[in-house]
This record gives sequence, C-alpha cells and structure tokens, in this order.
Amino acid sequence: MAAKAEHPNVLCTVDVVLLTLRDDALQVLLLRRTAEPFAGALALPGGYVHAQSDHDASDAAARVLRDKAGVESPYLEQLATFSGPARDPRGWSVSIAHFALLPESLLPPLHEGAVWKPVERLPALPFDHRQIVQEAVERVRAKSQYSSLPVHLCGERFTLPQLQAVYEAVLGEPVNKVSFRRKIDELGMLEPIEGEFTAGGAHRPAQLYRLRKAFRHVLSTSGRGLNSGA
Amino acid sequence: MAAKAEHPNVLCTVDVVLLTLRDDALQVLLLRRTAEPFAGALALPGGYVHAQSDHDASDAAARVLRDKAGVESPYLEQLATFSGPARDPRGWSVSIAHFALLPESLLPPLHEGAVWKPVERLPALPFDHRQIVQEAVERVRAKSQYSSLPVHLCGERFTLPQLQAVYEAVLGEPVNKVSFRRKIDELGMLEPIEGEFTAGGAHRPAQLYRLRKAFRHVLSTSGRGLNSGA
Repeated sequence: MAAKAEHPNVLCTVDVVLLTLRDDALQVLLLRRTAEPFAGALALPGGYVHAQSDHDASDAAARVLRDKAGVESPYLEQLATFSGPARDPRGWSVSIAHFALLPESLLPPLHEGAVWKPVERLPALPFDHRQIVQEAVERVRAKSQYSSLPVHLCGERFTLPQLQAVYEAVLGEPVNKVSFRRKIDELGMLEPIEGEFTAGGAHRPAQLYRLRKAFRHVLSTSGRGLNSGA
Repeated sequence: MAAKAEHPNVLCTVDVVLLTLRDDALQVLLLRRTAEPFAGALALPGGYVHAQSDHDASDAAARVLRDKAGVESPYLEQLATFSGPARDPRGWSVSIAHFALLPESLLPPLHEGAVWKPVERLPALPFDHRQIVQEAVERVRAKSQYSSLPVHLCGERFTLPQLQAVYEAVLGEPVNKVSFRRKIDELGMLEPIEGEFTAGGAHRPAQLYRLRKAFRHVLSTSGRGLNSGA
C-alpha cells in the first residue's frame, strides 16, 4: 500500500518534568545523561516508548520516573508533544512530554546523577528541554489559578494557611486570604480530618485537611482564576 | 547501543478535528476512508507524519487538511496525543491530534467523500476518533470561556451582536450581553473598521469589527470565564 512507503522511522520518546516545592520554590528534577547524545549533560528524565509493554504514553512516562528516579505515583498529566527534525541529533523525533507533581516529603532519596534545580535558574539543557520545562511551568501556573493542582505539592495533611503558602509559591505571587478561602470552598476538593489539629505553639490549633478521594487523579476546577479580581 | 534494541516501531500519525459553525451548531469535518483499516468508514482527516518534509507535527496537520480537504490556513492548535496498542489495528500507535477552526464562509467546496456532522450527533467513528472529537469540543468550549478563540469561527468582519451569537453557539448557552461586552473589551482583541457599518434595515447600522493582527495566530486570554458569575 502507498501509505506504507510514507511511514517514516520516527523516534518516539517521552520526557517528564517532575516538579516539587523545595525552599519555597518550584524545582525540577534533572538527571545526568549516561548515553549519547549529550552524555554527561543534565536533562529531563526520558526514554523511548516501549510498544511491547507500555499501555500508552502516560504509562511510559510513569515507568521512566519509576525506573530512572525511583518516583512512584506522582500526579501525572500530558503536557504537549514536541516534534521535528532539529530537536534531536538522531533525526526527526517526537517527545510526548508530561509534567508530574510530588510533595517534597514523598520524594525518594536522589539517585546518583540526579539533582533538583529551581525552574527560575535552569542550567543549559540539551534537546528542547528548556522549552519543555518552561511550558510545563506555564501550564502549572495557569492551572493553579483555577484548580486543585497545587494540592499535589502538599503532603497528605495540611492546614489552610499551609495550602495557601503552596499556592503562593507556585504562582510566584501573594494571594488574598479571603478570595483564597472562597476559591477553596468553591473547588470542594478538601475534607477536614475529624479531630485532627496542629499542635498549638504560639497560635491556636489549626484544623488539618486532606484531599477528597475523588480528586486524587482528577482536578477540581472552577471558572474563575484566583487573581482575576472581584 | 542497548537503547537501539528498545526503539519500537511506532506508527506516528496526526489527526485533525476541523470545526466550523453551520446552522448555529459546531460541526466537524469527516472524510470517507479509502484505505484499510476501516475503508469506507467516516473518520477524521489524518495521515502519517512525513519525516522528510514536515517541520513538525503541526505542519503535518496543516498538510493533511490542505491535501485531503483543500483547507488552507485555519486556526490550528495541538490538542493532545493519543497512544497505545488498541487504538489502531495495525499496532501500537501515536496520533498527535490537533483541532482547527475555520468560518463557514471561508470553507472550500467539499471534496468527494467529505461531510460535516454536528458534534452532538456523531456517527460511529473508527479508532478513538469519537474520543478525540469529544476532547476537542471540550477544549474549544473551555477556552472560549476566557479567550478570543471563537473569533476564528467568524468571517473577517462582524458586528458585536454577531460575535456574541458565535460565542453562544460554541458554548451552547446564552451569554449575558453586559458581561460579554466587558469581556471583549478586556481581551482587547478587536478593532473597529473605520467608517464601516452594517446596512440599517430595521435596526440602526452597527459598527463592523475585525480581529487585530497580533491575535491572528495567538489567542488573547483573560483570567476570568464568561459564565463564572460576578
């Protein structure tokens, strides 16, 4: 069939932008490459799609994180697909890029050659990995305006002031407390943990909350952004 | 190199959800397939990526629309990538899906085997094309809440009431005129065409507008949705 002749030999890979909050800043996991091209350079965790065993591209992304970084079950979402002749010296290639979020408290010990870098101070990166990181950060910030996404950077139990601090760190700007509380109510994603409060200290004890089960893998969203006024 | 052995033989295609407004409803272009698999079935326009000539996946999507449907220069955006072993009987495959918008007035005559179908009354579709159309429509509706996207379904010149009718047809619900006008101001995407008004008829002549040049390929967006209240 004519179509057969057109079928190109395309490299099909996944790359993952794994983000966490460390020192109040969004940071991305980079791994030192052990193989050519760009052996020795820091780059995003990535790899070929395994057509024999991966259920789909997201499954491939989850496998790459597990095998190359020891990270299990983060919040994982497809970002976009990057393609073309120039992005990889091996030839025309496709990278189905994903982003993933995990709270610092759930991160495994770093593998050898792995480092965290603040997204605002990226080193030189091979391929189009800088662009991929930048688009991931833009996407996370845009979605954080109107969804439960930042909760996936919190531990399992948190107070509302702790959650607000996480939103502010992700957005890179302060958030009004009243609109924040209203937004969280509107999103309906949290439940108080009965009888659980932070130890008092100088302040009065604060109620601890957790993410409702329905929103562990699906975002809760609302039509209006946090910083859109009114 | 070990990596070579892992490199799977993945079918890499693009599929395009081309949408227009006909009879006040969002409709999608379907083409009757001439080749197996699913020869004779209606399906989305699609094809293999051509690594020898396509600059990237969006370029491949634009080529498919041009060659298979005679459509030039629609608004075109990547939707998401669909992948896995089950979606195509030829084996593990990747489809980098796109959506495109074109006003009915700019559509070329239909090629043989091409039909428009309302997105709310889709026929049976092969592969995962029903899911791709549904995700495209969801994306278009969500983006229409807070961006200039629906303008790409209008002709070159339109009045504000005409534009509001297009937003309403896309969203599938009425839009408050006052919030609509405020939103359009906020988006800053339009310019009045000096001295151009609709012929009066029963109403007084209405100013004609056009999309500002800066927003022909980039959306203007705002933080708050049209129907998010306040």
